[in-house]
Amino acid sequence: MTHATTARYNLLGLDGVPAGELAALLDEADGFVAAAASRETSDLLAGRVIANLFFEDSTRTRCSFTVAAYRLGATTVDLTGKGSSLSKGETLLDTALNLEAMGVDALVVRSPRSGTPHLVADAVTCPVINAGDGRHEHPTQGLLDILTLRRRWGDIAGRTVVIVGDIANSRVARSNLHGLTTLGANVVLVGPPALVPVSFMKITAGPGRVSIEHDLDKTLANADAVMMLRIQLERHGTDGGGSIPPDYRRRYGLTADRAASLPPEVLIMHPGPMNRGVEIDASVADDPDRSVILEQVTNGVAVRMAVLKRAVSCQPIAEN
Amino acid sequence: MTHATTARYNLLGLDGVPAGELAALLDEADGFVAAAASRETSDLLAGRVIANLFFEDSTRTRCSFTVAAYRLGATTVDLTGKGSSLSKGETLLDTALNLEAMGVDALVVRSPRSGTPHLVADAVTCPVINAGDGRHEHPTQGLLDILTLRRRWGDIAGRTVVIVGDIANSRVARSNLHGLTTLGANVVLVGPPALVPVSFMKITAGPGRVSIEHDLDKTLANADAVMMLRIQLERHGTDGGGSIPPDYRRRYGLTADRAASLPPEVLIMHPGPMNRGVEIDASVADDPDRSVILEQVTNGVAVRMAVLKRAVSCQPIAEN
Amino acid sequence: MTHATTARYNLLGLDGVPAGELAALLDEADGFVAAAASRETSDLLAGRVIANLFFEDSTRTRCSFTVAAYRLGATTVDLTGKGSSLSKGETLLDTALNLEAMGVDALVVRSPRSGTPHLVADAVTCPVINAGDGRHEHPTQGLLDILTLRRRWGDIAGRTVVIVGDIANSRVARSNLHGLTTLGANVVLVGPPALVPVSFMKITAGPGRVSIEHDLDKTLANADAVMMLRIQLERHGTDGGGSIPPDYRRRYGLTADRAASLPPEVLIMHPGPMNRGVEIDASVADDPDRSVILEQVTNGVAVRMAVLKRAVSCQPIAEN
Repeated sequence: MTHATTARYNLLGLDGVPAGELAALLDEADGFVAAAASRETSDLLAGRVIANLFFEDSTRTRCSFTVAAYRLGATTVDLTGKGSSLSKGETLLDTALNLEAMGVDALVVRSPRSGTPHLVADAVTCPVINAGDGRHEHPTQGLLDILTLRRRWGDIAGRTVVIVGDIANSRVARSNLHGLTTLGANVVLVGPPALVPVSFMKITAGPGRVSIEHDLDKTLANADAVMMLRIQLERHGTDGGGSIPPDYRRRYGLTADRAASLPPEVLIMHPGPMNRGVEIDASVADDPDRSVILEQVTNGVAVRMAVLKRAVSCQPIAEN
Repeated sequence: MTHATTARYNLLGLDGVPAGELAALLDEADGFVAAAASRETSDLLAGRVIANLFFEDSTRTRCSFTVAAYRLGATTVDLTGKGSSLSKGETLLDTALNLEAMGVDALVVRSPRSGTPHLVADAVTCPVINAGDGRHEHPTQGLLDILTLRRRWGDIAGRTVVIVGDIANSRVARSNLHGLTTLGANVVLVGPPALVPVSFMKITAGPGRVSIEHDLDKTLANADAVMMLRIQLERHGTDGGGSIPPDYRRRYGLTADRAASLPPEVLIMHPGPMNRGVEIDASVADDPDRSVILEQVTNGVAVRMAVLKRAVSCQPIAEN
Repeated sequence: MTHATTARYNLLGLDGVPAGELAALLDEADGFVAAAASRETSDLLAGRVIANLFFEDSTRTRCSFTVAAYRLGATTVDLTGKGSSLSKGETLLDTALNLEAMGVDALVVRSPRSGTPHLVADAVTCPVINAGDGRHEHPTQGLLDILTLRRRWGDIAGRTVVIVGDIANSRVARSNLHGLTTLGANVVLVGPPALVPVSFMKITAGPGRVSIEHDLDKTLANADAVMMLRIQLERHGTDGGGSIPPDYRRRYGLTADRAASLPPEVLIMHPGPMNRGVEIDASVADDPDRSVILEQVTNGVAVRMAVLKRAVSCQPIAEN
C-alpha cells in the first residue's frame, strides 16, 4: 500500500501497488544497477539521514539499504531491538517519533510482527519503508526478485514463476505474489498442504493467475523460474513442531537430481538466507548458468536506491 | 564542569558552567535548529571522527549525537559495552586511550556509573562530552530542555519549572537544576519523599531558587512548565523494591484529569523514554498545544551540534 | 599470503610476504601517519564500501579499519555474528558472497577459527583482509608493530624483539614472527613451556633468527624491544585450565621492578587489550619514555589505510 495521495511516499507492501507504479520503480532501479556496479555515488540525497529500525535479525536487508543510502549520498543510523530505549519500556511508536523528531528523512522498518510498519507510518509523517514484517510483506524483496526476472526476460508477463516451500510463513512469497500477478506473470505455489494455505489463491491483483500444487515435480515442466524458500522455523509456533519434516528435501527440495531434469533456461532463485542441503542443494544454488541468487542480491541495492529516492526526494524539507 | 583554561573543551556537567557560557551554547544551538530542519550539512568538522562510547543502553542520545556529527561533516564510530575489548578485561580508560590514539577527535561517553566521563577526561587529551553518567549529570539533555523553554519563552529568568518524579536517580533533573537556576529560573522538585532528597535544595548556582514539594497538585498552579520523569527502576537497588509504588500514577502522574486543570500555556516536557500510563498519560504526552516533548528531541540535535562544534573545532589538530 | 599474480590483493597473513612488499606497505603507511594526525581525508576510495565481517569481539581493530576507510573517503558496513543472517543458519561463505554481490569492495574478516579468511577469499572475488583468525595470523597487527619499530629505529634489521607470554595462542606473535624475521630482525619467544611450542622455531622466512626461552630475565639484557602478550584464556580449552598460572606475573610479567632493570632505550610494546597487573604493570604500560603502546594504535590506522588502498584501488571496478 502506498499513500500516493499525500506528499508522502510509503512502501508498506506490493499489495495494491498499480502496475504503472511498479514499472516506474523497476525502470528507475534498472538504471541504478549499472551505477552501483561502477561505484558511482550521487548527491541526490545529500544531507539526508535514513534510519534502519530493525526489530529482527537481518544481514542482507540492513546492509543493502545502508549501501543504497550511501550510493545516493545519504547516511544511515541503525537501531536494533537491543541496545535501544525499547529495553527501558519505551513504545515502538515513541522510538519512531523520536527518530523523526531528530530529522530522520525515512524509516526503514523490520519487525517480527505483521503490521508494525503500518502502525509506524500512521504515527510519523516521514516516509516508511517496510523491510519485512512478520509473515506479511517484504516489498523491496519482491521488487528485486521481479527486477531480476525482468532483466533476464525483458518482460515478465505470461511467464510462470514457481515458488516452493514454506509459503504460509513467507512475506517474500506474499510480496512476490502481489507484484508478479499485477505485472501479468503466473505464480504456482508449491509445498506441503500445511504450508500452502488455500487462502493464497485469492491473492492476485492483476492479469496473472495463481495456482497451488503439492507435487513439485508436476510443476517444474512449465516453470520459467523456480524460487526456493527457507522453512522459517522461527515463525512456526512452539506447538507446530519447529522442525523440518523428515522427507522435506526429497519432496520439496531443489536437489541436484531434480535440477538436472529442469529445462536449461529455467532460472533458479532464492531470497536467502539459504539452508544448503535442505530446500536447495549447494550445487544448484551455485549453478553458474541458471542460478540468479547473487544477481537478486545485487539488484536489491538498486531497488532500494529507487525506493529511497522516491520516498525521500519527494518529501518536502521541513520548516521547523 | 568545563576546562576553559586549557585548549580543551569538555562538557562533563552543567554544574559550574557560568551563565554566559550557557547562553553562548544556547545561542549557537538556536542557529542550528533551522539548519538541521532544512537538512543543511556543513563541512565545519570535515575529516573529524567522534566516538560514541556507550556503556549503557540508549536510543535517542546516541542517534542524536550521530546525526549532529553528520550535519557538521564529521563521522562517528560506535562502541558499546558488548562486542568490545571490554569483554576481554580491558579497562574503560584503556579503551578511551586507544580511541584517542586512533585519531578520534572527541569522546561522547555514557555510563551507568557516576563520574566515568570525568575519569575518561582525566586520562585522555581530546574533548570528552558526558552523555549521561549514572545518577550524576546529563548536560546535553539539560541544555536541550533549556533551549526548548528559551525558544518558547524568549527568556527563562523568573519562570518556574516543576520537575516531577524520581529526582534522586535522575541525572536529567540534576543537570536541569544547575542550568535552570544559573539562568535565573526557579525549580520545584516534586515526588515521594524517598525519591526527592533534601540535599537537592543545595544544588543551585545562580539567581534561581529551588524548592521541594511532595504534593504535586499544590505546585501546578504556579508552574510555567512541568517536566515529568520516568521512574528509573534500573537504578533502584535490589533491596529498594524495584517496582513502581501502587498509587504513583494517582499521586505523581500527569494524568489527563490533572492536565486538564493546568493553565493552557503551561508547557509539558519529558526527557524520554516515556512510560505512558505511568508518569504521564498518553493523551497528555501527545497534547498538540502544550506538549513540547518532540521539540525537545529536535532541539537535542542542535544542542549536540553546538557542543561538538565547540569541543572539536577549538581543538588544535595534532602534530604526531 | 597474498595473491599478487591476480588483479586481486588479499592480505591473509604475513607468512610468505616478501621483504620488498612488506617494505612497500610500510613506506605507504609511514606517509599516512602524518595525514591521519592532521585529519586529512582523501577521496582515493570515494564511493567504495568496506565490510567489517567480525565473528569475534573487537574494539580497536574494527574501529581502526573504520577510521582508516573514512580517511580514504570510503564508508563501512559492519556485520557481527549476532544480529545477522548467521543466526538463521546461513553459512559464513554465503554471507560473504552476499556482501560482495551488494557491491562491497573489500571484506575485513575476523574469526575465532583459524583459516576462515582463507575460505572467504576462496569464495569471493573481492579483496579479503584478515583482521585476526583464531590462533593463526593478524597481519595488520604485525605490520603496525613493525611500523612502530621502524619509525623508532629507522631500520629493524639486526634488532632483537622479545615476545613474552601466551605464544601458542597468539596470532599476533605468529604474524610478527613472519614479518620481523623476513625483514631481518631476530625474535626471542618467551613463556612457560606449555605456551611456547617448539614448532615456532621453524617459523622464519628471512634472515632473522628465532629462539625460545623460558627465563624472561635472561632475555631482557639483549632486547631492543619487549612485546608483552595477554594470556588468551578464551582460546584455552575447557580442559586446559582456563586460568592464569599463580606465579605468572612474577615469572613472566613485565613488572615495575623488572622494567627498572631494562636498558633505557628498550621499547615496551603490547598489542592490547592489556590486563594491567597481570602481564604488564600499569606504570610500565604508561611509561612515557619507553612504552610505545599507544603509538602502535596510532600506527594501526595508517597501516590499515595502506592495506585498504592497496587492496581496493588495484581492484578493477565491476562491469555488471
